[in-house]
Amino acid sequence: MSATSRYSFLGPAGTFTEAALLQILDGDETAERVPTTSVPSALALVDDGEVDAAMVPIENSVEGGVTATLDAVSVAHQLHIVAEALVPITFVVATREPMPLSRIATITTHSHAWAQVRRWADATVPEAEFIPAASTAAGARGLLGEEPAADAAICSPLVAEQLGLHVAAAGVEDVEGAVTRFVLVRRPGPVPEPTGADKTTIMIPLPEDRAGALLELLEHFATRGVNLCRIESRPTGNGLGEYFFSIDLEGHIREERVADALAGVHRISPKIRFLGSYPRADGKPQQVTADVGDAAFSAARTWIDALRRG
Amino acid sequence: MSATSRYSFLGPAGTFTEAALLQILDGDETAERVPTTSVPSALALVDDGEVDAAMVPIENSVEGGVTATLDAVSVAHQLHIVAEALVPITFVVATREPMPLSRIATITTHSHAWAQVRRWADATVPEAEFIPAASTAAGARGLLGEEPAADAAICSPLVAEQLGLHVAAAGVEDVEGAVTRFVLVRRPGPVPEPTGADKTTIMIPLPEDRAGALLELLEHFATRGVNLCRIESRPTGNGLGEYFFSIDLEGHIREERVADALAGVHRISPKIRFLGSYPRADGKPQQVTADVGDAAFSAARTWIDALRRG
Amino acid sequence: MSATSRYSFLGPAGTFTEAALLQILDGDETAERVPTTSVPSALALVDDGEVDAAMVPIENSVEGGVTATLDAVSVAHQLHIVAEALVPITFVVATREPMPLSRIATITTHSHAWAQVRRWADATVPEAEFIPAASTAAGARGLLGEEPAADAAICSPLVAEQLGLHVAAAGVEDVEGAVTRFVLVRRPGPVPEPTGADKTTIMIPLPEDRAGALLELLEHFATRGVNLCRIESRPTGNGLGEYFFSIDLEGHIREERVADALAGVHRISPKIRFLGSYPRADGKPQQVTADVGDAAFSAARTWIDALRRG
Amino acid sequence: MSATSRYSFLGPAGTFTEAALLQILDGDETAERVPTTSVPSALALVDDGEVDAAMVPIENSVEGGVTATLDAVSVAHQLHIVAEALVPITFVVATREPMPLSRIATITTHSHAWAQVRRWADATVPEAEFIPAASTAAGARGLLGEEPAADAAICSPLVAEQLGLHVAAAGVEDVEGAVTRFVLVRRPGPVPEPTGADKTTIMIPLPEDRAGALLELLEHFATRGVNLCRIESRPTGNGLGEYFFSIDLEGHIREERVADALAGVHRISPKIRFLGSYPRADGKPQQVTADVGDAAFSAARTWIDALRRG
Repeated sequence: MSATSRYSFLGPAGTFTEAALLQILDGDETAERVPTTSVPSALALVDDGEVDAAMVPIENSVEGGVTATLDAVSVAHQLHIVAEALVPITFVVATREPMPLSRIATITTHSHAWAQVRRWADATVPEAEFIPAASTAAGARGLLGEEPAADAAICSPLVAEQLGLHVAAAGVEDVEGAVTRFVLVRRPGPVPEPTGADKTTIMIPLPEDRAGALLELLEHFATRGVNLCRIESRPTGNGLGEYFFSIDLEGHIREERVADALAGVHRISPKIRFLGSYPRADGKPQQVTADVGDAAFSAARTWIDALRRG
Repeated sequence: MSATSRYSFLGPAGTFTEAALLQILDGDETAERVPTTSVPSALALVDDGEVDAAMVPIENSVEGGVTATLDAVSVAHQLHIVAEALVPITFVVATREPMPLSRIATITTHSHAWAQVRRWADATVPEAEFIPAASTAAGARGLLGEEPAADAAICSPLVAEQLGLHVAAAGVEDVEGAVTRFVLVRRPGPVPEPTGADKTTIMIPLPEDRAGALLELLEHFATRGVNLCRIESRPTGNGLGEYFFSIDLEGHIREERVADALAGVHRISPKIRFLGSYPRADGKPQQVTADVGDAAFSAARTWIDALRRG
Repeated sequence: MSATSRYSFLGPAGTFTEAALLQILDGDETAERVPTTSVPSALALVDDGEVDAAMVPIENSVEGGVTATLDAVSVAHQLHIVAEALVPITFVVATREPMPLSRIATITTHSHAWAQVRRWADATVPEAEFIPAASTAAGARGLLGEEPAADAAICSPLVAEQLGLHVAAAGVEDVEGAVTRFVLVRRPGPVPEPTGADKTTIMIPLPEDRAGALLELLEHFATRGVNLCRIESRPTGNGLGEYFFSIDLEGHIREERVADALAGVHRISPKIRFLGSYPRADGKPQQVTADVGDAAFSAARTWIDALRRG
Repeated sequence: MSATSRYSFLGPAGTFTEAALLQILDGDETAERVPTTSVPSALALVDDGEVDAAMVPIENSVEGGVTATLDAVSVAHQLHIVAEALVPITFVVATREPMPLSRIATITTHSHAWAQVRRWADATVPEAEFIPAASTAAGARGLLGEEPAADAAICSPLVAEQLGLHVAAAGVEDVEGAVTRFVLVRRPGPVPEPTGADKTTIMIPLPEDRAGALLELLEHFATRGVNLCRIESRPTGNGLGEYFFSIDLEGHIREERVADALAGVHRISPKIRFLGSYPRADGKPQQVTADVGDAAFSAARTWIDALRRG
């Protein structure tokens, strides 16, 4: 990332999305981070050229966006994914000043975050009243100022640190190990180099709504040994019975097996959208058997070319 | 539905979820409707036997829940779906008293709903401040009382009517025709009778994470002519690379082709969960070709039995 | 085999077909063996009830029949296969009296057998004239009588022994290890008991002549883990572009996975013909993975039945 | 075909194979026809460069060769098919001089031909004795000379005409409409131009003997919309459980869908053998849907190339 880069992200400051962005920036102090109030706003700044890229949530977010984000990236904005980040979901109980948990009468946070700490809340602060906030970061910020919105906020460790809040309790989430997935998107350009541990994201309109149509689609991946990481059917909004598939697959478009599979799908669904090939956040290298390695594709092409020449 | 039925739903009163419940009740005045503050709470009341069934949002909801709901229905609660409802998403601008839109300085609603009326808000009330609420219904209710939380609320037509609010503008959603899907769940019991236009919902742990595993799964549906309405891969939470599939398919478990396909999947994934066969809300009848009709299954069985007897 | 059994076989006495029959009879001295001049004649005797079963060649035979035999068994005669036999193809050079090979001026045998010893003949008796015979056994028999048809005959060890001929050379076949396959057919009746190493033979009219039709057929076998030993497309004789498939598969119709696969195929091709389940001549036991074992089928059915009851 | 071409064929003169060759030569009087006594001999002349091409029987022949021919073409000789011919199988009863059928006491022909006229023989000349001949043509020739081998011969119309024999009866075959298939093979060279109605013949060693292996092979054809005309599994002769597939498919290697399918198969079975792309004898044009037309392949490649450049 160059020294002058600017990044929008789903704000306000201190969201898990900003944590994801900091993870990708990896200590780059020169990068400018621009919070926005919504995913579409973050994407619009990329479209307009005001920022170089946007970090937005994709999966299981407590801050909104989620599945609709990919639709927006693909359809409304035609952007490309160039990186992904996984951020563990962990919450702290933040207060303005040190105080015993038993004295907390009101707690503010986003309603999704509240749902994820309910068991802790029922056990620890059963009498506390919930005050909804527009985001976990906004809730934390509400503790400051002349008229604090609540006694405590449920928020990310990042925002508590940024605001200088006291951490009254940490790890209060009911489910341990939850992870949120984020992607960094930018205007179409050179695809990031393959790393040997990559993902490719695509959207495929289903040409026909009948038994076997999805099967025929997937045969194109299976015959090239391309594994799917994620598949979701999603309504196109054009009426009942019309779908597209949102798919993450293992591998990079510069790998022959991925390119060949996508070319096959393009024939039956020419409106397929390529959303990017990028390094996997988990770094898990793909297992590629010999029959779908680049050498096998090259050998096959050499054979065919020789036959055609006669 | 019997005269003494009780139903929990994701409240408070006036949510789209209550609208979905009213749709299913179809004018039954005797049914009791019990609002809850979260989807898990609504489901817990069913588990405990305090209500007969719960109405919860499944897809595209503006009120939370969404994809995680099915996981909860399946894993935490082991309930069955017995009905589905589709509710068009349309918003009104509600005020306590009639007033010109230009005089609205503050607007309250759930942040998801706010995201869905932003274009209208930017064009019509660009100066209005957004006050987050825990739900659209809670926002509307905030207009009442001694200290109204805002001048106006974005909410469903139902809640405006229930609270006697003035409708200052209707149909303010940015996207027309959006629909939210809800399901009615109850403890396992007799499956609703087939209607000829049914859906079946299942969850299938993927036995192996490799290219072709999903294909082999889907072959079980394709060979029985069973069409999928929806498929989503979802992480099991047991670590990276392990998934299950959440699937809606056309047809009823009392139909041979559906039963045969599910039996086939059960062999390769014995932990498959059946979440219910129920009438489709859109009433679209399934197209069944002769080779997968009940008569074809019956004829095949007769043939095999005769051969085995010799 | 009962003490009074009668068997027709493609004769005359001493053919490889008789050797196959002797292999199946396994020393039963009481069985009567009835040679016929053609495969259809052997089958007709079964139809007419004059014999209990017929032994006929199926694959790679040097004595005729071959692929057309299965068509005859299936279409013209509607018989069932109850056993198979594999007979190694080995030829001897038989003469009436001991004589040096260099003095052989004329050699008689069936033209197919002659083709299979040509390298030996070119090297050893390059000057010998070939006299065609109706079968290898008929050729051998032609050495007897007042006017021998030739100096030597190429025939099976069996016929040389039966006729008391001198074996001037043995193992003269050009290709070592060739094997001919034979089947024992009878009128439809109880299927032989499963042995754990069985084959099932079927004929399947292809419902449609298009890319993917065969694939859909084979998915029925793959989804039940049923391996194919042999597949051949064969014209139906009803005009261009219409085919049926002649298939041997591993397993017995009493096994659930085989019955389920055949029932699946019956739905898309109700004119499927079952030609028998019978022990494999090579005794190779089938490998059945847990997901297609009888227990998996039983568990799946139990699960479905419980769901349907509710 | 150039004026100086020489062709070997499975002889002797007058066989159906020569009829097939004459059909391909289409009146070219300058071509030289060289009969051989066996299929391997005909092929060996091509190998040695003594002839330009060989015509050999492939399917349903009454004169031998048949399925083993393709194995020989592929394995022993590495030749390519450049044309196919279909010859209706029809037999005449030929005699040296005009004579009533009732006076025929002995009939000579190849045993396969005899099998195909048995119903006629049983009805018309039930007392006639059958004298086996090495081929139908050899049988016909046996009527000439000082010591005729029989009173009559069952042979092709061609050989009766060539030898100046009397036709005592025509169309005596029991099954009407039977057709024999022949192919013209030559040393590898330029593939014949596509005609829009072509076939391609290949041999594919099966990489693994397990349920689903054939399915995976066929998915490569189905995903490219390539229809199979013929498929046969054949033992490799290397031991039990090892097979290859002999396949005719619709289309020409110069068509993208065929080349792409063969390249896909080459990856999983690199020992695949290409035996030729050549015009179909029946002239039936292939139906190619838009998604597998050359334009769809070209569009897909253009799309991928643009994405890879970024």
